[in-house]
Amino acid sequence: MKTFMDNDFMLKNEAGKRLYSAVKDLPIIDYHCHISPVEIAENKVFDNVFQVFLGGDHYKWRQMRSNGIEEKYITGDAPDFEKFKAFAKTMPKLIGNPIYHWTHMELRKYFGVTETLCGETCGEIWNKCNEKLKELPVRKIIEMSNVEVICTTDDPCDDLKYHEQLAADKSFKTKVYPAFRPDMAINIDKDGWADYIAKLSAAAEIEITDIASLKQALSKRVSYFAEHGCFAADHGLDYMPYETMSERDIDETFKAALCSKPISQAEADAFKLSVLKHLAAEYTKLGWTMELHYSCIRNNNKKMFRLLGADTGFDAISSYSSNNNLAMFLNELEENNSLPKTIIFSLNPIDNAAIGSIIGCFQGTEAANKIQQGPAWWFNDAKKGIEDQLVSYASLSTLGNFVGMLTDSRSFLSYTRHDYFRRILCNMIGTWVEDGELPADFAMLEKTAADISYFNAKRYFGL
Amino acid sequence: MKTFMDNDFMLKNEAGKRLYSAVKDLPIIDYHCHISPVEIAENKVFDNVFQVFLGGDHYKWRQMRSNGIEEKYITGDAPDFEKFKAFAKTMPKLIGNPIYHWTHMELRKYFGVTETLCGETCGEIWNKCNEKLKELPVRKIIEMSNVEVICTTDDPCDDLKYHEQLAADKSFKTKVYPAFRPDMAINIDKDGWADYIAKLSAAAEIEITDIASLKQALSKRVSYFAEHGCFAADHGLDYMPYETMSERDIDETFKAALCSKPISQAEADAFKLSVLKHLAAEYTKLGWTMELHYSCIRNNNKKMFRLLGADTGFDAISSYSSNNNLAMFLNELEENNSLPKTIIFSLNPIDNAAIGSIIGCFQGTEAANKIQQGPAWWFNDAKKGIEDQLVSYASLSTLGNFVGMLTDSRSFLSYTRHDYFRRILCNMIGTWVEDGELPADFAMLEKTAADISYFNAKRYFGL
Amino acid sequence: MKTFMDNDFMLKNEAGKRLYSAVKDLPIIDYHCHISPVEIAENKVFDNVFQVFLGGDHYKWRQMRSNGIEEKYITGDAPDFEKFKAFAKTMPKLIGNPIYHWTHMELRKYFGVTETLCGETCGEIWNKCNEKLKELPVRKIIEMSNVEVICTTDDPCDDLKYHEQLAADKSFKTKVYPAFRPDMAINIDKDGWADYIAKLSAAAEIEITDIASLKQALSKRVSYFAEHGCFAADHGLDYMPYETMSERDIDETFKAALCSKPISQAEADAFKLSVLKHLAAEYTKLGWTMELHYSCIRNNNKKMFRLLGADTGFDAISSYSSNNNLAMFLNELEENNSLPKTIIFSLNPIDNAAIGSIIGCFQGTEAANKIQQGPAWWFNDAKKGIEDQLVSYASLSTLGNFVGMLTDSRSFLSYTRHDYFRRILCNMIGTWVEDGELPADFAMLEKTAADISYFNAKRYFGL
Repeated sequence: MKTFMDNDFMLKNEAGKRLYSAVKDLPIIDYHCHISPVEIAENKVFDNVFQVFLGGDHYKWRQMRSNGIEEKYITGDAPDFEKFKAFAKTMPKLIGNPIYHWTHMELRKYFGVTETLCGETCGEIWNKCNEKLKELPVRKIIEMSNVEVICTTDDPCDDLKYHEQLAADKSFKTKVYPAFRPDMAINIDKDGWADYIAKLSAAAEIEITDIASLKQALSKRVSYFAEHGCFAADHGLDYMPYETMSERDIDETFKAALCSKPISQAEADAFKLSVLKHLAAEYTKLGWTMELHYSCIRNNNKKMFRLLGADTGFDAISSYSSNNNLAMFLNELEENNSLPKTIIFSLNPIDNAAIGSIIGCFQGTEAANKIQQGPAWWFNDAKKGIEDQLVSYASLSTLGNFVGMLTDSRSFLSYTRHDYFRRILCNMIGTWVEDGELPADFAMLEKTAADISYFNAKRYFGL
Repeated sequence: MKTFMDNDFMLKNEAGKRLYSAVKDLPIIDYHCHISPVEIAENKVFDNVFQVFLGGDHYKWRQMRSNGIEEKYITGDAPDFEKFKAFAKTMPKLIGNPIYHWTHMELRKYFGVTETLCGETCGEIWNKCNEKLKELPVRKIIEMSNVEVICTTDDPCDDLKYHEQLAADKSFKTKVYPAFRPDMAINIDKDGWADYIAKLSAAAEIEITDIASLKQALSKRVSYFAEHGCFAADHGLDYMPYETMSERDIDETFKAALCSKPISQAEADAFKLSVLKHLAAEYTKLGWTMELHYSCIRNNNKKMFRLLGADTGFDAISSYSSNNNLAMFLNELEENNSLPKTIIFSLNPIDNAAIGSIIGCFQGTEAANKIQQGPAWWFNDAKKGIEDQLVSYASLSTLGNFVGMLTDSRSFLSYTRHDYFRRILCNMIGTWVEDGELPADFAMLEKTAADISYFNAKRYFGL
Repeated sequence: MKTFMDNDFMLKNEAGKRLYSAVKDLPIIDYHCHISPVEIAENKVFDNVFQVFLGGDHYKWRQMRSNGIEEKYITGDAPDFEKFKAFAKTMPKLIGNPIYHWTHMELRKYFGVTETLCGETCGEIWNKCNEKLKELPVRKIIEMSNVEVICTTDDPCDDLKYHEQLAADKSFKTKVYPAFRPDMAINIDKDGWADYIAKLSAAAEIEITDIASLKQALSKRVSYFAEHGCFAADHGLDYMPYETMSERDIDETFKAALCSKPISQAEADAFKLSVLKHLAAEYTKLGWTMELHYSCIRNNNKKMFRLLGADTGFDAISSYSSNNNLAMFLNELEENNSLPKTIIFSLNPIDNAAIGSIIGCFQGTEAANKIQQGPAWWFNDAKKGIEDQLVSYASLSTLGNFVGMLTDSRSFLSYTRHDYFRRILCNMIGTWVEDGELPADFAMLEKTAADISYFNAKRYFGL
C-alpha cells in the first residue's frame, strides 16, 4: 500500500519515477489563467487561508453546495473560519474528486501541512496556514512555483497598466503577459453588448458605428496588446458559430443590435463568425496563437446568477456539438491564408476524438502540431480526464509536440496542477515502457516528457 | 490466478476487501424496480427456474436473440426446459457481459449452484434449482436478500390495494412502497393516450376536460400515493422536452389530442413540460424525490412490438441529447421554488459528464447532493458502466453523498446487483488507497462505503 | 520491465499468452480493405520501402503533417529516401500512437528489422528493407501473412477483370473477392454524380433515365458481382440519411439532379434512403452482408483536396449522430423482410453504446449475431479504441459471435493489424480469467478467441 501523496504520488512504476525526476524541476509556462495582474503588481498578502484558498475558487464552492451547505458559508457573510470549516467538513465527501488531491497538494507545497483536511483538523490547519501566509505574498507563491511565464486573460478595453508596471519591474523574474479575450465584443446576443461597444469605442479611440469600424477598433486593440507582449488570444464560446451571410447583412445585424432591436440566432451567429474570421486574420499576421474554448452553458441557475453574477459555480458542459462547425471554420481560415496557430478546448470530453481528428486536417509548417487540442479543461481537469485527453491526443495527433498543461485558474495556489499533470504524464509513459509498449530509450523519453512539460510551449509560443 | 467468483469476486486488493467486509451485510434499499406487488402480496412460488430466471427478463431475451435463437425458445411456446437450455447454451458467448456475472451470482446465492452454466450443465442445474425453488417463495427470496425497502413502479390509476395488503401484513418485514409513474398521462403523442385520460378520470373521480382538470386529477392521485407511503415519482422520457407555450395554447393542444386531432411535436413537448412542471411542484411540497429517466428509444422493432408488446427487449439508447433541456428545466423549477430532490438517469453513457456538471448548478440545503445522477442504468449496468458512472460522479459531484444502487429489475433474483455494485465500489475506493491516491483512513472510508451502499439512501429518502 | 515488442507484446498475463498461442497461427479473413486487385494480379514488386510503407498510407501522412513537415516530403517530389527519413524523424513524436506499434510490427515481420525507427537509424533500415523487398512481391507478403480471404472494395462499374484473372490463377491460394461499394451512385449531392450515372448506364447496359432504371442497373451490377464471388456490400455514408418521400417525388429529385438542377438536403436524403432500401433487399435475397460506415466528414481541407484529391489524410470524425436514423432504417428493412446480415461502423467512438443497443433490437436466426458492430474503425483502430469496442460489444451483444478484425487498409503490410487485434483480444480475456471474472475453462475460452479471430467470419460470410 503506497503512502498517501508521498514523493511518488501518482507514479506507479520505476520508469514513470525516472521520467518524473527529469521534469519535476522544469519551470512552468502558464499560458492561460485568470489570476489578477493587479494582485501580482501589488504583491498582495492574504489575510487568511480562506481568502487564498476559497475566496475566488468556484470549483470548491460547487462542491460545498453539492454537500448541502448554506450559501452563507460559501459566498455569504459567515466569518472566514466558519467558511473554511464548512469546506473542511466537505472534504471527506470528495474522495475521487480532483479537489481532494489539489487541496492536499496545495497544503503540502505552500504550507508544509501534511495532515488530511477534515472537520477535526481544520482548526489546527487554519492556524498553521495563516501563520505561513504572512510570509507568502503573491509573488513569493509564484516564485516558489518556478513560474517562468504567466498569461493573464484581459479585456480588449484594458489599459494593461499593471502589465506595464510588471514589465518595468526588474525585481520580479516571472514574465506576465496579457492575453486578448474579446468575448464581450463578440457576444452580440448577450445583455450589455451595446454598452460594451461604447466602452470599446472609447478604449480604441474609434467611433464604432458599423461592422467595419468595430473590426478596426478590435484591430487597434490587438496592436496595443501586441505592443505589451501579448502573443495569444482566447475565445470563450458557448458553441462554435457557423452561419454565413453577406457583409452587408451582418452590418445590418450590427446596427440593429446597437439600437437594441431583436436579432435572430442565425444573424448573431453570422456576426460572430465574421468577427472571429477578422480576428483570426489579425492573429495570423502577428504570429499569435488563437485559443478556442467551447461547449459551455453558462449561468444555468438564473436565481443565483442574479445574486452572485457570472463565474460563481453555475456553469456546465453543453451537449450541443460544435465540432463540425469547427472543421468548417478552420477550413475557411485556411482558404483565406488566415489560420493562426490554434488550440482547441471543448468542455465536453466526448469531443476528444472528433477534435483530435479535425486538427489533423489543418496542420502547417509554422509549428510542430500547429493546431493542437488543449489539455483537459475545467470539469475534465481530473486524473481520468487528463489521462483520456493524453491517450486521445497520442492516438490521433503527435503527443511529442503537445504544449501541455495550464492552470486556467483564479487561484495563486493552482500551480500544483502542473505538478499533477507531470506526474500523470510520466506515469502514463512509464507504464507504456514497463509494459513493453515503448522501448526503454530513456534519453528519447525524458526529452519527450520535458518537451511536453515545458519546452514545447516555449517553442510553440516563441518565448 | 483468482478463482472464478470466489468470496473476493471483483476485489483485487486488501483495502477493497476490508471495505467490502464493512458493507456486505448492510440491508438493501431498492428505491426503483419493476417487480410486481401482486406477486409479493401473494408470495408467489415459481414452478421452475425458467420462470423465475427468464420468464420476464428481457435483458436475457436480447442476448438469446443475439445468439441467433428462435423466438419459440425465448418468449414462444417451447417447453420451459428447452428455453432454459437455449439460454444455457448462449452463456459461453456472453463472456464480458454482465449477464454472465449476474447469472452465476444468482445461481450461487439463491440455489447454491457453483457449476458454470452452459449446454452441458444445464440439465443438472435445472433439477437442482427446481428442487430449491419449492422452498423459495418470493418473500423468502426478498428476505434472503436482506431487503429493507422496495419501491415498485405504479401507474397513477392503480388502487394500490396490494400495497395496502402488504402494509397491513405485520409478518413481512420488508417495506413495499409504491412509486408514482405518470408516463401514460404525459405521453400525449402516443397511442392510447386519450383512453388513458378516461381511465385517469375514473380513478381520480374528476372529469378531465382540460389541462387544468388533468393537473387536478394528477394532484389527487399524487395525494393518494402519498397516503400509501409513496415518496418518489419516476418519469420515463424518450427525451427531455423543453418547449414553452402559453397555458391557453397548451389547453388547446390537450383538447385537440383528446379528440384525436393531430398535434405537432412542439405542441406535444410544451404540453409535457407543463405537466412535468406541475408535478414537480407537487413533489416539492411533499418532499418527494423526482426521478428522470431519458435518452431511450423504445420498441424499435415494430414487427416484434406488434407480436410481443412493450418491454420485451427491443429498446435502445437514443443519441438525441436531452442535457441542455434538462438544465433549462431545472432552472425553471428553481425559479418557481418547485425543484424537488431529483435523480437524473440517462441511458446514453456519453451523458455522464454533462449531467455531472449540470446537477452541480442546482444543489440545495434540503439534502446532501439534493440533485443526483442515478447509478449506471440498464444497458450501462455492467462493470465498466458502473465504474465510469462512479468516477464521473466522484469527479464532478460529491461521491460521499451518492444514494447508490437500485435494481431497476423485473426479476426477484436481481438483488445480487446490489452486491455486484458494492464489490465494484469497494474495489475502486480500495484501489485508490492502495495506489496512495487516498489516505488509508479506514474509519472514514468504511463510513463512506457504507453511506453509499445504504445510509445515504435512507437519509435522502427520509426512511 | 517487459522488453519492447517481444513475443508477448501486449500480453500481460499467462492466461492471455495461452489464449494467444491458440490463435496466432490461424489464417486471416480480411473482409474489408482497400488494396488494389491489379497489384495482386500483377504481383507488384516495390522499388523501395517508402513505396510499400508510405506510398499510399494517408494515416502516416497525417502524422507527418502534424509534425510540421512540408508536403514536399510527404506527397511531393522529394526523393523517396528523403521522405522516408522525414517519416523516421517523426516516429519519436508518435509515442502512444498506433502507427508507432504498426510500423515496428511491420518492420519486424516483413523485414526482420528490430531496431527502433528514428532519424538516426533510418539509413540503415532503408537499405536493409530495400534489400528484402526484392524478394517480397505482393503475393509473397500476402502468403507470409497467412491470408485466406481478401475482399477488395470495388465500384459497381468495375469489370472485375483482375478478380477473374486471380480466380483463374490456381497458383495463388488466397481467395480475392470483390465487395460492392455503390457510394458514387448514391451520393446524388456530390460533384460528378450525373457523370457517374452515365458511366453506370454503360457498365450495366441499361439506359438510366429515372429512379426505377437506376435501381435496375444497380441490381444488374449486384448480380454481376455475385457471379464473381462477391458476398458483401459496403456503404460509406457521411451520415445515415432518413427522410421519407413518395417514390414519385424521389423520381423527380433524380431527374432534377441529372440535369444539374439544385436539390434540397431532404430530397437528397430521401433519394439515398430509397436506393439503400432497394439495395438492402437485393443483398438479403443473395445472403450478402451489408456494411454501413458512417459519421465521417471528408475532405475538410478544401485547399488540399484541390491539390491532392480524396483519401489523402484530410478526413475527420463527424459529430452529427446517425444512430437514431439507423434504428429507423433497420426497422424499415425488417418490416419489409429485407434486412440482410449487417455490420455497423461509426467513426465516432461515442456511438459504441448506442450502436451496441440498437443492433440487439434486430437480430435474426440467419446467423449468430446477424447484426454486428464492426471492429474499431480507422481513427479508433488503436489499443484503447479496440479495447473500448470489445468491452462495449461484450457488454451489449454476444462477444463470442463477433466476426472480428479487418485491415481497412491501402497497404499490403497492414496484416499485422490482425495480429495486434488478436493480442489485445487475448490479453483482455486473459485478464478477466486472471482476475477471477471468468472461469479458467481454457477449452471454452480458446474456442471463443479462435472464433473471434477467424471462425466466426468464416461462418458468418459462408466461406
